[in-house]
Amino acid sequence: MPIDTRPGIPRAAVKNDRLIRALLRRPLDATPIWLMRQAGRYLPEYRETRRRAGDFMTLCKTPDLACEVTLQPIERFALDAAILFSDILTIPDAMGLGLSVQEGVGPRFERPVRSAAEIRALGVPDPEDRLRYVMDAVRQSRQALAGRVPLIGFAGSPWTLATYMVEGGSGRDFRRVKGLMFEAPRLLHELLDKLARAVTAYLKAQAEAGAQVLMVFDTWGGVLSTHAYEEFSLRYLAEVVAGVKAAPAPPPVILFTKGGAGWIEPIAVTGCEAVGLDWTQDLAATRRRVGHRVALQGNLDPLALYAPPERIRAEVSTLLSSFGTGSGHVFNLGHGIEPDTDPEHVRVLVDAVHELSVPYHSGVEPSGVEPCRVE
Amino acid sequence: MPIDTRPGIPRAAVKNDRLIRALLRRPLDATPIWLMRQAGRYLPEYRETRRRAGDFMTLCKTPDLACEVTLQPIERFALDAAILFSDILTIPDAMGLGLSVQEGVGPRFERPVRSAAEIRALGVPDPEDRLRYVMDAVRQSRQALAGRVPLIGFAGSPWTLATYMVEGGSGRDFRRVKGLMFEAPRLLHELLDKLARAVTAYLKAQAEAGAQVLMVFDTWGGVLSTHAYEEFSLRYLAEVVAGVKAAPAPPPVILFTKGGAGWIEPIAVTGCEAVGLDWTQDLAATRRRVGHRVALQGNLDPLALYAPPERIRAEVSTLLSSFGTGSGHVFNLGHGIEPDTDPEHVRVLVDAVHELSVPYHSGVEPSGVEPCRVE
Repeated sequence: MPIDTRPGIPRAAVKNDRLIRALLRRPLDATPIWLMRQAGRYLPEYRETRRRAGDFMTLCKTPDLACEVTLQPIERFALDAAILFSDILTIPDAMGLGLSVQEGVGPRFERPVRSAAEIRALGVPDPEDRLRYVMDAVRQSRQALAGRVPLIGFAGSPWTLATYMVEGGSGRDFRRVKGLMFEAPRLLHELLDKLARAVTAYLKAQAEAGAQVLMVFDTWGGVLSTHAYEEFSLRYLAEVVAGVKAAPAPPPVILFTKGGAGWIEPIAVTGCEAVGLDWTQDLAATRRRVGHRVALQGNLDPLALYAPPERIRAEVSTLLSSFGTGSGHVFNLGHGIEPDTDPEHVRVLVDAVHELSVPYHSGVEPSGVEPCRVE
Repeated sequence: MPIDTRPGIPRAAVKNDRLIRALLRRPLDATPIWLMRQAGRYLPEYRETRRRAGDFMTLCKTPDLACEVTLQPIERFALDAAILFSDILTIPDAMGLGLSVQEGVGPRFERPVRSAAEIRALGVPDPEDRLRYVMDAVRQSRQALAGRVPLIGFAGSPWTLATYMVEGGSGRDFRRVKGLMFEAPRLLHELLDKLARAVTAYLKAQAEAGAQVLMVFDTWGGVLSTHAYEEFSLRYLAEVVAGVKAAPAPPPVILFTKGGAGWIEPIAVTGCEAVGLDWTQDLAATRRRVGHRVALQGNLDPLALYAPPERIRAEVSTLLSSFGTGSGHVFNLGHGIEPDTDPEHVRVLVDAVHELSVPYHSGVEPSGVEPCRVE
């Protein structure tokens, strides 16, 4: 009997299943919201935990602390999902590149990879070995959430990981990795192939450890030309989705290419359930382009949170009406929340999304859509 | 009799009229090419003139030197256009903000504008008064070119100028100008309205001084959400185009919003002749979206010029075939050329475009298109 790989509502009960319903385009009562980097520096309780941890990577690598930080925004706001506190660069770190993250400087690798020998020497890390701290953080966070909201696991895309690994950190112009792309494309493909296998194993392990939704951050896909995006990023995103979906009862998958406005249609046919949009992308136009095939996640400009409450509510209203009626919209920012955001403005945002979205979910089951069964 | 505002071939003869023909979608023998920042630091002769000038703004403000630098790439390569050597921030400088440009630091204004009083105190500069050095550079360059290739004049878009004027330089997150947008949108509109009038007057004066093509650089339109782009950038781009086109025999206009992949259709109906594309945008898909309404300019990744010659030729070939047959493509980079580019690679690029594009211009006049008359 073939394995049923259609996404379903996870077996374990989730009291607030808005995110899952929206991702699966099933009817629901209000639009769900969570925020990229919701567990982070804008929260005083995060800064306190971070202070105790000493540095960023210790915070990531200590499951008790990562779990504590994952739950902080859930305790404070009526968010509809928790996202694991971690970093997209855990995989290259586990591959032996020596990651350090300094505030104001960003991530740095002690041992970037540039030569054929360095790329060929890389292994695909076993998630339950060198990345066990991540899996432990997933298990602890899932348990601590006790079904209140779903837990999102995540990884960086193969292309995005490759950019950091080759540049040695967050370069502004990507000349080293693009040099490899233009001068030794086959070698770059070797690296990306290895990373696609590592990312797939990592995401599957997170799902097994308890993550109920998976997201792939393609932070730097948007620096590529269309044909380079297709060859060096999208192809590997599709491989990751196919790999994750080959497991029994796979969780819904969200793909997010920042700057990917021109490539929504090909992203939408990779097999993912949802596509993340940065704030430059028009929700209405994007929905017209992809129809009911995928859910859309986004896409308020993070700087809109500096505005006074009434303006934040107006921006929410504009975005909700831009998406329109029915399920399939996960409200989020178009990029991570800024560290100097006022947490009270986040409360205004979260409450506005729930309150103002009710009229867009009429309660009448659209014909042909079966009601969602939550076990 | 109503003034004929349809763009025509300029009265003065241009020996190489490929750019004009491509902008007007008229038949031609090969695809024209010019490069953003073609007069710049990658050329040793530019660095020598710059050294003599002392600093960047002196180079901009000395017509003899600006003219010398404008012509340098034309002397060296078979480029199909010259672009005036200048800076997009000449207008705010003429408004009294005190511009300085330091290598590695970027532009800085001594007196940024943030308050209502500061914005209201700004005047619209007379192009032949405080910006006379630009008009003199246009006149001298036009004369020195002696009709070899057309001369492109340019300006920054109102939104882009506003970002620099409010931030005080090139901010990375635009929080000050977005703060104004979210908290005092009417005040920002006052500033943008003033800038639109200044940009229009400036471009019209450049055309009167001899610029045969005009380009507007909307470098930072791409940091806006779609509805903010429409309200704060596109609307003023359209006003500038309408203003320029109200003059008798207006030159063709190119609009370029970096990061504007999602907004090509509304840009294409502003009345401009051509839309510039950054390297992330797909030429073929964009041509399908806008049809024959406008010409398209772009869009090689500037970092492709680091690649070996045979790879540069392959990238040219891909882009040419992506646009396809017929007129309406102006080859360019998707962003300014990098200062450490090897000039010999530029030669490879320019020659490849001319050589490899011939088959896309069959020489058979497509029916319904009248041959171009050059006086």
